[in-house]
Amino acid sequence: MDPHHNSAQWRRLRSTPGPDYRIFSLRYDEMENPRNGHRETMIVLESPDSVNVVAVTTAGEVLFVRQYRFGTGSYTLELPGGVVDPGEDHGAAARRELEEETGYSGDLWHYLGVVASNPVFMNNYIHHWYVEGVSLGAQQKLDPSEAVEVVAMPVDEVYRRWLAGEFEHPHTVNALLRYFAMVKLS
Amino acid sequence: MDPHHNSAQWRRLRSTPGPDYRIFSLRYDEMENPRNGHRETMIVLESPDSVNVVAVTTAGEVLFVRQYRFGTGSYTLELPGGVVDPGEDHGAAARRELEEETGYSGDLWHYLGVVASNPVFMNNYIHHWYVEGVSLGAQQKLDPSEAVEVVAMPVDEVYRRWLAGEFEHPHTVNALLRYFAMVKLS
Repeated sequence: MDPHHNSAQWRRLRSTPGPDYRIFSLRYDEMENPRNGHRETMIVLESPDSVNVVAVTTAGEVLFVRQYRFGTGSYTLELPGGVVDPGEDHGAAARRELEEETGYSGDLWHYLGVVASNPVFMNNYIHHWYVEGVSLGAQQKLDPSEAVEVVAMPVDEVYRRWLAGEFEHPHTVNALLRYFAMVKLS
Repeated sequence: MDPHHNSAQWRRLRSTPGPDYRIFSLRYDEMENPRNGHRETMIVLESPDSVNVVAVTTAGEVLFVRQYRFGTGSYTLELPGGVVDPGEDHGAAARRELEEETGYSGDLWHYLGVVASNPVFMNNYIHHWYVEGVSLGAQQKLDPSEAVEVVAMPVDEVYRRWLAGEFEHPHTVNALLRYFAMVKLS
């Protein structure tokens, strides 16, 4: 955002690949600060884009997935979602991830927008999708390393919990903002 | 959130330190899936907690910092903030980071809550603070690797841009949610 900025630009003097850790790979960028000419090597995590989905059932409930997260070592409630496969469109990834993680699907899809995963040191983005009137039509198809419980929550309760700060994953918070901005706050 | 869960628990079979990359260090956890007994090594980034600050001036403007972010390779508008120093209280870190990045300070501080940085593979949290009636009392004190422009934006414009999805950093989005939940949406 905010296209106007100083004419002095950060210069990337060198970029070197680092180790590949499956969910991301490291890159080292040697950068020169336009303010003072200071040079420093910055680490960037390269990851594919991801998606998450606000899926509202025919009964007016939002679908969440409850799973153990290895980073925080705790169970979280998050919107369904996951990583966009190589060559896959992020809209297709949203349909696939919703069905794999929950067994639900639907036809009325709307794009809600995007947020950076973490602009400080990650290069990827999270695309938010909304789908209306989903219903259960299939079994979960989980990876061997996943254990996911589906939780359906009435929209009013989702809004109350969102306002109360109960959702722990910032990408879930942002997708719900895009959804409530559309259906409730505008 | 949501304390009730399956009795079957993920077991951490082994935890091994990995390289230290200054802004984070890697850890490898060998985990056993309670659903199927599948074992897999998961990567966790260990980082100190961070803070960000909704600082409202005596003129009713919110302070942002505009800076180049190496992850996305773009300029962003974010709330002031940064990493909590070793042994530092996160409230003290909020005061210190606000003053270092903007030169502004104030006395009426309120804790707004917390969000996980990224529960999937990061172990740290972002604490959100709100301070009322700040005024400019000092010079910026930037690290050699920082170049930060301070932008003061009227609260109504912040709300409009937040609803429109213009803020790119999910931790800034979440702190603004905590703030607007308190002053506007409840």
